[in-house]
Amino acid sequence: MKIQTECVPCLLKRIIFEAEHSTKDKKLRTKTIKNACKLLSELYDPNICSATIATKVHKIAYETLGDHDPYKDLKERSNKIAQSLVPQVEELIKKSDDPLRTTMLCSIIGNLMDFGISGASEHPELLREIFEETFAEGLGHDDTKEIKRLLSKSKYVLLFTDNCGEIVFDKILCRELKKFNPDIFLTVIVKGEPIISDATIKDVEELEFEEVSDEIFTTGCFAIGIDFEKIPPMLEKALNQADLIICKGMANYEAFSETDYYPIAYLLRTKCTAIANSMNLPLNINAVKIYE
Amino acid sequence: MKIQTECVPCLLKRIIFEAEHSTKDKKLRTKTIKNACKLLSELYDPNICSATIATKVHKIAYETLGDHDPYKDLKERSNKIAQSLVPQVEELIKKSDDPLRTTMLCSIIGNLMDFGISGASEHPELLREIFEETFAEGLGHDDTKEIKRLLSKSKYVLLFTDNCGEIVFDKILCRELKKFNPDIFLTVIVKGEPIISDATIKDVEELEFEEVSDEIFTTGCFAIGIDFEKIPPMLEKALNQADLIICKGMANYEAFSETDYYPIAYLLRTKCTAIANSMNLPLNINAVKIYE
Repeated sequence: MKIQTECVPCLLKRIIFEAEHSTKDKKLRTKTIKNACKLLSELYDPNICSATIATKVHKIAYETLGDHDPYKDLKERSNKIAQSLVPQVEELIKKSDDPLRTTMLCSIIGNLMDFGISGASEHPELLREIFEETFAEGLGHDDTKEIKRLLSKSKYVLLFTDNCGEIVFDKILCRELKKFNPDIFLTVIVKGEPIISDATIKDVEELEFEEVSDEIFTTGCFAIGIDFEKIPPMLEKALNQADLIICKGMANYEAFSETDYYPIAYLLRTKCTAIANSMNLPLNINAVKIYE
Repeated sequence: MKIQTECVPCLLKRIIFEAEHSTKDKKLRTKTIKNACKLLSELYDPNICSATIATKVHKIAYETLGDHDPYKDLKERSNKIAQSLVPQVEELIKKSDDPLRTTMLCSIIGNLMDFGISGASEHPELLREIFEETFAEGLGHDDTKEIKRLLSKSKYVLLFTDNCGEIVFDKILCRELKKFNPDIFLTVIVKGEPIISDATIKDVEELEFEEVSDEIFTTGCFAIGIDFEKIPPMLEKALNQADLIICKGMANYEAFSETDYYPIAYLLRTKCTAIANSMNLPLNINAVKIYE
């Protein structure tokens, strides 16, 4: 997705959130905001991918703050909250007549734990309060049937993860993907470096993803979504041989929608009109949408 | 009020709104956004008044767009919509056992017609839909009793107006102020140049404010709220001799809260947390608050 005008204030809002979350030093906060505005004034170009610009703006914010992981505590809290919801999620899956679909929905609800933007929860603990009502909303766009069709004949499946918190539900998703088709070779991809509240190798190791996947890769770098110019060769090879790519969250859509990797399924909450419009979906829905 | 971090994305949102409203030329829109970000990166300073920075950022946006009045049509539509609501407002005042208070409330509801920011109506026509429910909300903070006390012993009263649309109700407010105390000398102040959706001399002339006021001044320049370094000497004199200053809208609060002009009453809708927090009021209420 190319950057939209509305991405500019939204990105700055997030930068302010991370500056205020990272430090009490007002001078440092001010410097971070000024640097982010300056870089945006240089980089803003409606022909450039939103994720590419966001990566660079977050990079300068992290550097200015001297903080390589401003969301560290929020990520830990998010994982904890999500783990406390696992029994509820397992019960819903057990009772469901479509376990894979139910798992995908729960995994998308986890995507509501996102910070510093509108349409997401303000603090991890909120997820507990909104889980049930969001589950009741169901999938506002539902291509799970198409995913199952592809999944049943797939060998190589990639899962690009997004935030901490939801990563806990993504583990259950991996298990259910393999239950649906035990023959798949499942590669899970996390971020190469801490960036916003996204999951890194630390999270999947702690959550023992090796139990439910065949391979774990990282994106190899600091990037919102994925920076295709910097991905490790092994990941590039995996992308080229994938029979199905599953992406969690908006940033992966922002990055992948600029590529020709197909078939690709996005599992996300449409938290902003830029993404919702680009995907031709309503705002604030749980969506499973496939592009073949 | 000093600029708050949240003012930065909000101001940019407004700049984007006016760029998109002013031109279909995407290059010009992009240039406007880039210039606004650049200027913000230079000017952002938590020790500076928000209105001062906003004035400069809007100035560069207008210059880049080559448009000295991007809100022209919205202002005209706002006035029309407000005028269509006058019979309803007059009926409410007529029925009211506190006409001045009811008039103030209606005049504040008009303040909801504001564009390109959250907490306000997206288009003028929306006011018609939300008028009744907003009226039913009443005043969330009500210092009308104190205003009346001051008004009854005042000679020189100044009314600083805000947006078009609400200016129609401000005329009724002038009439009711004079009805309450016929001895006051009422000066109405509008903006010296078109800036966002604020009323200018053109509006008060068309609405025949001379019927309800004794004197009409302008702020003398292009400014969000008021630029005290550029006000005409006559307005400065009026400010110094005023027994009561009444200000409509948030921008006037942003500017006047940095001065020592008292007693001063603000009539506004708290459309953002920056203002709400600064005034120690809840968000999204109709407020009449006096500082003595």
